[in-house]
Amino acid sequence: MKRSAFFISDGTGITAEALGQSLLAQFDGIEFRTITLPYIDSVEKAQGAVAQIDAAASDNGRPIVFDTVVNEDIRKVIAQSSGFNIDVFASFLKPLEQELKTHSSYTVGKSHGIQEMTRYKDRIESVNFAIDNDDGARTQQYDKADIILVGVSRCGKTPTCLYMAMQFGVRAANYPITEEDLSQDELPGILKPYQDKLFGLTIDPFQLAAIRHERRPNSRYSSLDQCSLEVRSVERMLKKAQIQKINTTTFSIEEIATRIIAARGLKREVGL
Amino acid sequence: MKRSAFFISDGTGITAEALGQSLLAQFDGIEFRTITLPYIDSVEKAQGAVAQIDAAASDNGRPIVFDTVVNEDIRKVIAQSSGFNIDVFASFLKPLEQELKTHSSYTVGKSHGIQEMTRYKDRIESVNFAIDNDDGARTQQYDKADIILVGVSRCGKTPTCLYMAMQFGVRAANYPITEEDLSQDELPGILKPYQDKLFGLTIDPFQLAAIRHERRPNSRYSSLDQCSLEVRSVERMLKKAQIQKINTTTFSIEEIATRIIAARGLKREVGL
Repeated sequence: MKRSAFFISDGTGITAEALGQSLLAQFDGIEFRTITLPYIDSVEKAQGAVAQIDAAASDNGRPIVFDTVVNEDIRKVIAQSSGFNIDVFASFLKPLEQELKTHSSYTVGKSHGIQEMTRYKDRIESVNFAIDNDDGARTQQYDKADIILVGVSRCGKTPTCLYMAMQFGVRAANYPITEEDLSQDELPGILKPYQDKLFGLTIDPFQLAAIRHERRPNSRYSSLDQCSLEVRSVERMLKKAQIQKINTTTFSIEEIATRIIAARGLKREVGL
Repeated sequence: MKRSAFFISDGTGITAEALGQSLLAQFDGIEFRTITLPYIDSVEKAQGAVAQIDAAASDNGRPIVFDTVVNEDIRKVIAQSSGFNIDVFASFLKPLEQELKTHSSYTVGKSHGIQEMTRYKDRIESVNFAIDNDDGARTQQYDKADIILVGVSRCGKTPTCLYMAMQFGVRAANYPITEEDLSQDELPGILKPYQDKLFGLTIDPFQLAAIRHERRPNSRYSSLDQCSLEVRSVERMLKKAQIQKINTTTFSIEEIATRIIAARGLKREVGL
């Protein structure tokens, strides 16, 4: 039986998951069963969480507990479980209070509420922008884009645009390079006025063929020949037009998005 | 001048941002200027980061530094800055090593690489599913949905579906309740076979009017009368059909998504 790991939060649990996972990912040999318990915002709920933790002990050892609950009374309850407790706020809030010479407000779930309406609206508008400008649609809005991703069909443009919008409030459009475009060996005319906003995505043809195969099995579209041809042509086009590119093959969407943002010096809207 | 806060990572910086923000959000009175430095994966880059930190000291005090770098040599360099250092891995990795009775692998950026291809593909497929099944399109795929959000136009269905897909690999479709649907006072026929998958979103009519106003200013669509009428009718419809709902007015997309997932007991695909 796998060893259990709990991510416990008085809010969404997203921070506890992100932190817990990056720590657990450092232990190669061990497989974990992960359980997220969000909205543990009362002593009663914390007692319920403790019961779940205690029940999850196995031959492989007691559960690991990542706790990002703000309220101290609730944290004290969780600390009574039989699990191995990583108490994030206990570790860092006190030193921060000393450094900042003030008390913290211990506001439950504050980090994922709507703190700053302007930033929040920006993100939602960016998501709408990404959808409206997905797959070459509504190309008249390219002038409002922070960045325009170009690449062959199914190389990762759409999820990358959506992630940039959702996480960082970046207005990202995308344009799929089609066979018709490739016959010209230069940038499609529609993109030329926006050359400084373009960023290329490329991908290993084998992986592209596998992805396309799931969409349209045994088609010309998903054949390795076709995928290789398109990828080579797009790479040539990007090189000729001196457009920076990233190979998405081994990167997650988070990686692709943050690398593009870093490469272009775009602002990550993550303000408090 | 605002006090500076740095989020430093050898990977995307997303975890450092999430953790740092939830900690800083506890200090109400203080405004921070936040700077994320991702991909600090060499001693040279760390020296560059230190120079940036040292240059950011102001009358309001030295910068706060949240460091999620895995490699110890790099962390040692960052610790030499004049900032106030919160070293996440130093705080938690050693105790975890003792508890797990093994050494950690200290793999740079591991937490946001593609660790588990199956889970990764699930997320991308879920994003594609959300786009394909957005706004009542392709309703024939409702049988494959984990959840179907229903609500009036612009109440937050699309970004919520996309977030559920991107962050948690949940297959979320959405159906906008139109005026035509509302004239019937019961669930649209197309949704009836999927009643157990439905989840309602509702919203304060004033906020809805403000959101719609940005889309189509001074239209009937964005008038408070129309928004009130639609919201009231949808709430009545949801109640009659006994469909659980959430009011999105004061919640962020993360909150809405995680609350729906918790209410429905859907699996958060965040496995290592």
